[in-house]
Amino acid sequence: MSEEPRGRDTADTTTAKPPMRDALVAAAFQLFLERGYEQTTVDDIVTLAGVGRRSFFRYFPSKEDVVFPDHERCLTDMKAFLGAGTGEEEPVRRVCDAARLVLRMYAENPTFSVQRYRLTKKVPGLRAYELSVVWRYERALAEYLRDRFAGRPDGTLQADVVAAAVVAAHNNALRSWLRSDGQSDPDTAVDHALGYVQTSFGSSPGAGDAPAEEQEDVVVVISRRGAPMWRVVREIESTLGRE
Amino acid sequence: MSEEPRGRDTADTTTAKPPMRDALVAAAFQLFLERGYEQTTVDDIVTLAGVGRRSFFRYFPSKEDVVFPDHERCLTDMKAFLGAGTGEEEPVRRVCDAARLVLRMYAENPTFSVQRYRLTKKVPGLRAYELSVVWRYERALAEYLRDRFAGRPDGTLQADVVAAAVVAAHNNALRSWLRSDGQSDPDTAVDHALGYVQTSFGSSPGAGDAPAEEQEDVVVVISRRGAPMWRVVREIESTLGRE
Repeated sequence: MSEEPRGRDTADTTTAKPPMRDALVAAAFQLFLERGYEQTTVDDIVTLAGVGRRSFFRYFPSKEDVVFPDHERCLTDMKAFLGAGTGEEEPVRRVCDAARLVLRMYAENPTFSVQRYRLTKKVPGLRAYELSVVWRYERALAEYLRDRFAGRPDGTLQADVVAAAVVAAHNNALRSWLRSDGQSDPDTAVDHALGYVQTSFGSSPGAGDAPAEEQEDVVVVISRRGAPMWRVVREIESTLGRE
Repeated sequence: MSEEPRGRDTADTTTAKPPMRDALVAAAFQLFLERGYEQTTVDDIVTLAGVGRRSFFRYFPSKEDVVFPDHERCLTDMKAFLGAGTGEEEPVRRVCDAARLVLRMYAENPTFSVQRYRLTKKVPGLRAYELSVVWRYERALAEYLRDRFAGRPDGTLQADVVAAAVVAAHNNALRSWLRSDGQSDPDTAVDHALGYVQTSFGSSPGAGDAPAEEQEDVVVVISRRGAPMWRVVREIESTLGRE
């Protein structure tokens, strides 16, 4: 395997969550599930958690933010992971590995993730908030790829398209897992989904695993069915340098 | 060319816009540019347009909607275009053609589109609204593709990924055009961007143009560089049915 993306299990004091923050999230979700998101106020949440309003706003800018308490940390981790590369990594594979950090965050707490998924589907404001979060992940991946593809004529186009494809594949796998109530295997689903993107954009899913001399050196020949065989063979020989 | 997506220039009384609606949009934008989006109220807009508040809310559910007055119509046109197919169209090409409807809507009124682009960049609430609009286009494309890919093992995954890639490519071209202040050629940019998606997902950009008997019948051979030539040739002959 290539370098593992850094997850929550890595000791990191800057992202450690204080107990009061956890208590606020727990109180908020208890109330959201009991009486609904719209019917719950910040005052209700702080009363149940036994803290003051200022404590709430120290951790969360708004009521929406308490629904997605870990995205800021995850986004920070993702940017750190992308920034920590040597610049030698296969770029599409690298953004796929970065996307796995998001799945891992969800998979760390299946019950909470499934509850939130059901809540988000019901509340349009939360759906809009989630779209803005997804967009920030996509921009982080696209910016990394724009940098890596800087020498290509269509670098920014390719970066934007690949980033969007990675996010869509990741979210397809994530939704499957959430719809299974967190019962299916999220890693298998996301590996499969991201494999499709890696194949589509020309990087072999396993390419980063093998030493350079063992990597498959792939030649693609495209021909019309009607082309004479001698021409096809000549083209292959020319490509393979066996003339 | 394949069937043209239906644009605003097609006579269609159901989507014709009444003058009062246009007057409200014009008044709103005049005020947004003069005093800023946040500083402009619906009351300000209806006063300048010389109509009552009820008229405003007859056309627009909220102040945000007046900034994007044509997306609902465009989304309706897009769904109608996708639904009007025979089911024989190459699916990726079809969603690319559907995406062109959005570009066309922007290109119909360059001054307005460029003004709105600058406004949207400055107002976070409008950016969030725009993301929800983009998401709805993406879902429309994905639903069409899910239907067309229903027989494939990874149909929904492929549909989601291709739809996201089409939207990202379209938006890359759209932003280039908006950044040029509407001076560059939007069609060339979007053709190029969507061509990248069509190539990545296995449909030749021009495939739909030629009559069936002239279409290129493409064979792709993938081989390791180290494979013996006789094996490569045997594989090609087998694929071409010349054994």
